[in-house]
Amino acid sequence: MFSITVRDHVMVAHSFRGEVFGPAQRLHGATFVVDARFKRTDLDADNIVVDIGLATSELGTVLAALNYRNLDEVPEFEGVNTSTEFLAKHIADRLAERVHAGALGEGAKGLSAIEVTLHESHVAWASYERAL
Amino acid sequence: MFSITVRDHVMVAHSFRGEVFGPAQRLHGATFVVDARFKRTDLDADNIVVDIGLATSELGTVLAALNYRNLDEVPEFEGVNTSTEFLAKHIADRLAERVHAGALGEGAKGLSAIEVTLHESHVAWASYERAL
Amino acid sequence: MFSITVRDHVMVAHSFRGEVFGPAQRLHGATFVVDARFKRTDLDADNIVVDIGLATSELGTVLAALNYRNLDEVPEFEGVNTSTEFLAKHIADRLAERVHAGALGEGAKGLSAIEVTLHESHVAWASYERAL
Amino acid sequence: MFSITVRDHVMVAHSFRGEVFGPAQRLHGATFVVDARFKRTDLDADNIVVDIGLATSELGTVLAALNYRNLDEVPEFEGVNTSTEFLAKHIADRLAERVHAGALGEGAKGLSAIEVTLHESHVAWASYERAL
Amino acid sequence: MFSITVRDHVMVAHSFRGEVFGPAQRLHGATFVVDARFKRTDLDADNIVVDIGLATSELGTVLAALNYRNLDEVPEFEGVNTSTEFLAKHIADRLAERVHAGALGEGAKGLSAIEVTLHESHVAWASYERAL
Amino acid sequence: MFSITVRDHVMVAHSFRGEVFGPAQRLHGATFVVDARFKRTDLDADNIVVDIGLATSELGTVLAALNYRNLDEVPEFEGVNTSTEFLAKHIADRLAERVHAGALGEGAKGLSAIEVTLHESHVAWASYERAL
Repeated sequence: MFSITVRDHVMVAHSFRGEVFGPAQRLHGATFVVDARFKRTDLDADNIVVDIGLATSELGTVLAALNYRNLDEVPEFEGVNTSTEFLAKHIADRLAERVHAGALGEGAKGLSAIEVTLHESHVAWASYERAL
Repeated sequence: MFSITVRDHVMVAHSFRGEVFGPAQRLHGATFVVDARFKRTDLDADNIVVDIGLATSELGTVLAALNYRNLDEVPEFEGVNTSTEFLAKHIADRLAERVHAGALGEGAKGLSAIEVTLHESHVAWASYERAL
Repeated sequence: MFSITVRDHVMVAHSFRGEVFGPAQRLHGATFVVDARFKRTDLDADNIVVDIGLATSELGTVLAALNYRNLDEVPEFEGVNTSTEFLAKHIADRLAERVHAGALGEGAKGLSAIEVTLHESHVAWASYERAL
Repeated sequence: MFSITVRDHVMVAHSFRGEVFGPAQRLHGATFVVDARFKRTDLDADNIVVDIGLATSELGTVLAALNYRNLDEVPEFEGVNTSTEFLAKHIADRLAERVHAGALGEGAKGLSAIEVTLHESHVAWASYERAL
Repeated sequence: MFSITVRDHVMVAHSFRGEVFGPAQRLHGATFVVDARFKRTDLDADNIVVDIGLATSELGTVLAALNYRNLDEVPEFEGVNTSTEFLAKHIADRLAERVHAGALGEGAKGLSAIEVTLHESHVAWASYERAL
Repeated sequence: MFSITVRDHVMVAHSFRGEVFGPAQRLHGATFVVDARFKRTDLDADNIVVDIGLATSELGTVLAALNYRNLDEVPEFEGVNTSTEFLAKHIADRLAERVHAGALGEGAKGLSAIEVTLHESHVAWASYERAL
């Protein structure tokens, strides 16, 4: 199994609902350093997993929709706890849509899975992996 | 599949028995930077994998039993090579017990696996993963 | 010249005023991984720069006053752009006050300078250094 | 499942053929920070995954055959795009041969898989995993 | 003293002349992860050291002139050992020219120094610092 | 001002004397990831700060005298708290002796300073800088 991973980041504000979140129920924020990992069984005709330039720019596009925002005010997330693990899935799902739409190139149709990891600090991170 | 990971560290002395260990047969020590990763298929009702505060404090409790100790003198490890990979399993097993005892909250009962990674330097680390 | 550095982190929301900040004029957030470096010419009687336990707990206390907050609503920061570099100075100044108040121990009176670095992502950080 | 990972690096020149590579079609170079991960179900009689000293020296031997070279001039790679993901497989395959030849010790015959990760920068890396 | 640092990277091929370089006399390559640090005594009217967006884009422009190139064939470097430390100075000097030309904004005229660090692997890096 | 830095590591056991050290008064251990930074005003005739191969091997030699040892039993350290900051000075002083003895080459006589940093965990490190 092969994979390539590209890294970018996003800076957001949000708050959580639920006693389990303690002081994080207050409006606060986070930098998420985001790793998007693309997996496949065999390399394509160019000997690569996916065009790393497109992978990077598509990750950037997905993150731009979140960047410098207060997630509490994004209609799509109304009533949702935008936890690190939830956001990992959100980003992976958006990337999967881009793959299926052909935005990562024809070769990307051979991808088998995407794993997205969000680092919220030097001591905590969350991941979500899904099939394509 | 979702996961969250929390990081802490522990500083111990120990020695190894066996020619394979070379100079590490002498009493020496290590800082282990410890990553505990908790996995599950679906998020809980709060949209999280596990309460990250409890995960962090339980990892701290497990490490406190080892921290600033000479492992050669810990009765539980008598006659055992406390290798990095062995300690990864030891810590994962203690965390699994805490999960089963309810110390990570009711939601943690939905966890499917734990992976523990111990970084012994910038050029070497070891992991152990087990089901819950 | 000797130094020791301890690391912690803080998660805040804030917004900026001024065209130079572009989309960061919107309410957003950041995780700041914070390094506090304490400098002195000679070691103290215990052969250390400062009690690392106290340095860590005092840094934690200073950060707790900011953690999980919207800095736009903190009276002390009214009308202020809470940039990464400004916050580095804010934290260094609070630590300096703690040193002068004796909170880092008697030995800490031999400290000559503090440098605080805030990492806002994997590609950007800011520092402020001041004498004691 | 247990694993240990050792890290080394290699510095090479190369060029790519294919429009997808853009400016990387020109002769350029890369430092690859290389992580070799060895996996097995149970520990050996010494309580380890594999002799970490041998793992490190064998990784060094495999990398030495590539280090400080222009891969475009290595006969083995003639007509091949030596992409990061391709090189991850190349290194994993060479390590697998060394395991099968007994170079990592008798205990290494219990290894079940090797995963090799090549970091080409702080924002991109590639992996290949294979059974043993 | 305040500073901000931004990070980018560049991938080049080159060779060295001189016995001291050993196998690095052969054509090989490197990824340099590049940190550009801008220093000044006081913050500007926006409470910042320099516009981080401009700092990042100017660093990118300076690196683009080197990226994906064989430095042995760049006329400017003819007969020069393009060592990591030399390249750190080259990049710092180009950034200083950009500051003086006003490319980092009017506020950047208050900068007092630039330090450029090039990481050539996980175990080696070089820096150059100059006044502005 | 130019500098180059090389990284290695050392694993030791030791204990501390003094109430300030709390549980670290017990025999424990540490991995120190060690950065040795060499500074000079101008590059030498080869366009470098110092031969990086010699810098790396001399750092290795200095660390080998400590590696896999219980520092409490090293005669040179009898009655001494081998704190991280003390060890940074010890290593810097040994490297300075090697420079003066010519072990880093003739060119190294142009070096002006050495800074040694010891990382004891992901959240704490200490440095010592001295002139040459």
